Amino acid sequence: MIATKGYAALSVGAKLTAWDFDRRDVGPNDVQFDILYCGVCHSDLHQIKNDWFEGIFPMVPGHEIVGRVARVGENVKKFKVGDLVGTGCMVDSCGKCESCKHDEEQYCENGNIQTYNNVNHYTDGMPTYGGYSKTIVVKEEFVLRLPENLELPGVAPLLCAGITTYSPLKHWGVGKGHKLAVLGLGGLGHMAVKFGAAFGAEVTVLSTSENKREDAKKLGAHNFIVTTDPEQFKAAAASFDFILDTVSANHDIPAYMGLLKTNGVHICVGAPSQPTPIPAFALIPNRKSLAGSMIGGILETQEMLDFCGQHNIVSDVEVIDMSYIDKAYERMEKNDVKYRFVIDMATL
Amino acid sequence: MIATKGYAALSVGAKLTAWDFDRRDVGPNDVQFDILYCGVCHSDLHQIKNDWFEGIFPMVPGHEIVGRVARVGENVKKFKVGDLVGTGCMVDSCGKCESCKHDEEQYCENGNIQTYNNVNHYTDGMPTYGGYSKTIVVKEEFVLRLPENLELPGVAPLLCAGITTYSPLKHWGVGKGHKLAVLGLGGLGHMAVKFGAAFGAEVTVLSTSENKREDAKKLGAHNFIVTTDPEQFKAAAASFDFILDTVSANHDIPAYMGLLKTNGVHICVGAPSQPTPIPAFALIPNRKSLAGSMIGGILETQEMLDFCGQHNIVSDVEVIDMSYIDKAYERMEKNDVKYRFVIDMATL
Repeated sequence: MIATKGYAALSVGAKLTAWDFDRRDVGPNDVQFDILYCGVCHSDLHQIKNDWFEGIFPMVPGHEIVGRVARVGENVKKFKVGDLVGTGCMVDSCGKCESCKHDEEQYCENGNIQTYNNVNHYTDGMPTYGGYSKTIVVKEEFVLRLPENLELPGVAPLLCAGITTYSPLKHWGVGKGHKLAVLGLGGLGHMAVKFGAAFGAEVTVLSTSENKREDAKKLGAHNFIVTTDPEQFKAAAASFDFILDTVSANHDIPAYMGLLKTNGVHICVGAPSQPTPIPAFALIPNRKSLAGSMIGGILETQEMLDFCGQHNIVSDVEVIDMSYIDKAYERMEKNDVKYRFVIDMATL
Repeated sequence: MIATKGYAALSVGAKLTAWDFDRRDVGPNDVQFDILYCGVCHSDLHQIKNDWFEGIFPMVPGHEIVGRVARVGENVKKFKVGDLVGTGCMVDSCGKCESCKHDEEQYCENGNIQTYNNVNHYTDGMPTYGGYSKTIVVKEEFVLRLPENLELPGVAPLLCAGITTYSPLKHWGVGKGHKLAVLGLGGLGHMAVKFGAAFGAEVTVLSTSENKREDAKKLGAHNFIVTTDPEQFKAAAASFDFILDTVSANHDIPAYMGLLKTNGVHICVGAPSQPTPIPAFALIPNRKSLAGSMIGGILETQEMLDFCGQHNIVSDVEVIDMSYIDKAYERMEKNDVKYRFVIDMATL
């Protein structure tokens, strides 16, 4: 076993604290990499608090992990010591189902293994621990190669916030000639704006706060609508082909669907805790769809990272020390971050 | 004006009664046809009762109308006296918007004109009155040619129940290699089974009542699931590519969405009166969609009628006298009809 240290919630809802634990030894198909940065995702906080389901404690959060390879197993072909690599939300999957065979391990029919707060029953039977730690051991197939030309802290969030917005835009073919609305300008939303603009769509940010207007433009948005202004909202009726909805607070989805054209698709990537009441008349009269999408497969994540390298796309981040994490969570809950906290693991 | 008679609800919720009224004179682009049969749609009853919106009274329901041409305007090219024709849910639209230009008048951005319970502000400014009547005058573009080889009473419901199920199956490309579930076996559902099977999909009927099993098979379904049996329901998890949901009573849509595979689409064509609570986790983990669809355009309706002529597809109907309508409504509310009442207009 490989002794390492991390920051963990020792029990549900507990404040994070330093915690020593072990990673499995590097197997023949494994890559061990030393973690340089780890992004802070809102879902880290949801999971510590058991907001969605019963968690496994102690819990070491973090699934936006970047670093350099320290050691590789004997069968590993794609990576060597010193390579810049990363791991996102998954570290394993069955590899045999239709989804896995189609490079969509995120939808593995037998269940993929989340990077933390899961038990890896495919490989070692151990609980998984995330990226708020010094080193990690991951199966080669779930390790991503990172572009060398990008600022590394801004790359970390690509592994969750990036792929979560990139994948649906690609799946629904969003691009030139489309009007895309991005609902919410946070960690996910700011990446959706960058990708939407890079794909050639006309991007409009829908936000409750006027003071994000300038930022939205800087990120590449062509238009900005303050959704709390009834006149602006009404004027935008039936104008979008797609809404990429990044909001995880409860919100009135049918009202936003009124902004879609015929055949428009409202795509949820944020997960509100409460079900949203959807009337049939939000769907039927203009053949609209309400859809969801979850991260992306490993192949697509690599494609996204390569795309980011070619187009100089990174996440806008605020780099923090490990000890700042409680304060970071507090600020994240108030949306007081532009747009992602990333932990400098040298400070652990 | 052309004097005619019909059966009308004189006020909201009233029992239907004989009522004399006028149609507009046959204009240069109009077709007048004498009505032989008219289907009875559940939406007739919803509209009489103002279930969805404030209606216009007296109201002559009926939008599954078939008959023979009695007179044509001087500019009419497609039809001549004696032709077998029909009209469905729409009698006019703006003709200028993107939807109309793409032959999807059902989604006309300026509002199409419903066959009854509407005012035709495009043509004559008069209230529209439906097919529970002796004759009707309709703009040439909204008149459909009917196959001569089919039993006429069974053709009438094709104009609403038929196109409402045909159009989404075509739009989503449902066919060979797909597993299609049809939720509800009524007027819409029985047509969905016929079309799904004709398109080559493997069709499963989802029904609350075991006693529809034999009928489902006769209609062309390959499988049948009694949804109230927890074992059968559980065994069907994650097995369908599409669910065509024809149920207009309130029901637990997210539970049914659990029967969809990854990328599955749940398509609503029935309109429950209450909004359905949809949790994000019904959509996100397997990139599922919840969609709606409404009738079909005129071009597609003609295509559907021609398809039915070629494949000998009609609706299964019970032909009734006009005076039986109250009883028919009562029975329809109890789903006691196989599968559509059609009024013989000779009895008016």
